[in-house]
Amino acid sequence: MDKLDKDFKAAKKLYDGGSNPLVQLWEITLYCLRKLSDEATSREQGKIDNKRYYVYEAKGGISRPYFRDLFITSEDHFTRTWDLIIKNIDSKKHLINFPPNGIDSVLYTSSMAFAMCYDIWKNSSRKTPGTYLEVLLGSLMGMILPDYKRTKHVPLPIKNVEEGSEDNNEESVSTDIVFEKKMQTGEVFGLVIPVKITTRERIVQPFAHQRILDGVFGPARFNSILICISEMQLDKKNNKVNEICVPGTIRLFQKYLAQLVGIFYFDPPVRYLQDDVREVILIGSVGELFTNHLPKLSKGQTEQVVP
Amino acid sequence: MDKLDKDFKAAKKLYDGGSNPLVQLWEITLYCLRKLSDEATSREQGKIDNKRYYVYEAKGGISRPYFRDLFITSEDHFTRTWDLIIKNIDSKKHLINFPPNGIDSVLYTSSMAFAMCYDIWKNSSRKTPGTYLEVLLGSLMGMILPDYKRTKHVPLPIKNVEEGSEDNNEESVSTDIVFEKKMQTGEVFGLVIPVKITTRERIVQPFAHQRILDGVFGPARFNSILICISEMQLDKKNNKVNEICVPGTIRLFQKYLAQLVGIFYFDPPVRYLQDDVREVILIGSVGELFTNHLPKLSKGQTEQVVP
Repeated sequence: MDKLDKDFKAAKKLYDGGSNPLVQLWEITLYCLRKLSDEATSREQGKIDNKRYYVYEAKGGISRPYFRDLFITSEDHFTRTWDLIIKNIDSKKHLINFPPNGIDSVLYTSSMAFAMCYDIWKNSSRKTPGTYLEVLLGSLMGMILPDYKRTKHVPLPIKNVEEGSEDNNEESVSTDIVFEKKMQTGEVFGLVIPVKITTRERIVQPFAHQRILDGVFGPARFNSILICISEMQLDKKNNKVNEICVPGTIRLFQKYLAQLVGIFYFDPPVRYLQDDVREVILIGSVGELFTNHLPKLSKGQTEQVVP
Repeated sequence: MDKLDKDFKAAKKLYDGGSNPLVQLWEITLYCLRKLSDEATSREQGKIDNKRYYVYEAKGGISRPYFRDLFITSEDHFTRTWDLIIKNIDSKKHLINFPPNGIDSVLYTSSMAFAMCYDIWKNSSRKTPGTYLEVLLGSLMGMILPDYKRTKHVPLPIKNVEEGSEDNNEESVSTDIVFEKKMQTGEVFGLVIPVKITTRERIVQPFAHQRILDGVFGPARFNSILICISEMQLDKKNNKVNEICVPGTIRLFQKYLAQLVGIFYFDPPVRYLQDDVREVILIGSVGELFTNHLPKLSKGQTEQVVP
């Protein structure tokens, strides 16, 4: 695990310097897949909506549950699909020409293999799997949107006028990934992309940020896209899997806080694909985002539904 | 610690049933003070703004840092002050007739003694100290505001009209403590009181909730008061204490999300008592809230400053 930690730190450093270290992330994923296959065993943990969730176990540790149909255990299969996805990025059209399910599968496998290794062998580093997901998505989107600038925050044109304030920094909205571009009009347009493994009670933040961005810049200058792995959790106590969905909360926030343009999952909860949720917010898989929605969203065309 | 766990569960049950189990909380505090004094040692951990913070240590465990000047180690002193506070509750005027610093001291001691015991001897139950703080404040406020109904959420008069939705529950804003009352006009007025040990990145939630309440009910029907112990944290890595203040974030949320009526601490960060923060939001100690601000706030008179 020290090797994994070291390799990811190196990749993160490249990413923070503005690179898209996809080769390094591919190598890290292979290392994780091999480690899980060599040193852990897997077994079924539970079913949700007829989807089978498995866990990996090894001495002293258990992983979060993974959706078996979406997780690629074969290194060869993983590498072939990964390569095809990278080759089929169309950076002019801002999309990937590839079956959405293949994209979901590869990104799910990469982020979950890493997270599950940390669950089992490095349980104290709870935040690292989230950072990995951020670097993975930021790097891939960096290849899809090369004409955009990637940052982690939106500076707000608000001055602190208080005399003697120690807090003279510019205000900003800090998030996981921002892609911004100066349009021909001279105005900056941006996509604000909070990235979460699961949302749980933290789903409020993207909505609050969008509200502030709407308030400061006016609507549709910055649009938020929330990207998550899934809403699946291990319920250790009852030895089962749990999918925590909060459709009522999403409806409430979308109506009274601000409107996200969409929420995209590698493994979307069935509950969120039902009409009553889709009537208030665009919900889909990340594969669908990269093949179908992103070209429009990158031009500032939102598909917002009015709740 | 099993006794402590059991005693608190019993108190929590009384609280959830609508009682104000202050006698039980007093007994629990004495038990914690004795346990800390008998089985742990204390030492200085660091200074912030000339305030000395100590920690308790015992085999295998270290507590969060506590502000020595505010923490009462003497059981007698604690009991005398606790009794005087309860005796000096004026439930007609909605206040406590007692020096604010004494109130802060007693509530700080009770919540911190409990939290520090959990830090040292039951580190896996991370959420329980927050629940204790909620029960402590809710019980005391229940004595101050007996003509109010205490709940944990504000139901929203919004119907889920979607046919076939599985999610037919009424929507509501869930928080830690709500005191509500039907006014002579027939309208419900309420105080929404999120209670946090420290806020950290979660400070967004009270603002988002207030925004929703403003949106659904119109302004000033429900007013939010955020109550916290402090913003102090143990920095284990560097063996010091950290006080995390985000005045810029508060200013931003207060201006662009919604307005809380105030934030009150047992141990208020010096940074938040400076003018540039007080210009945008009412900041004070919990003692000041219970002696001075609550009578006005309970009548719906806010002292909001317009940022």
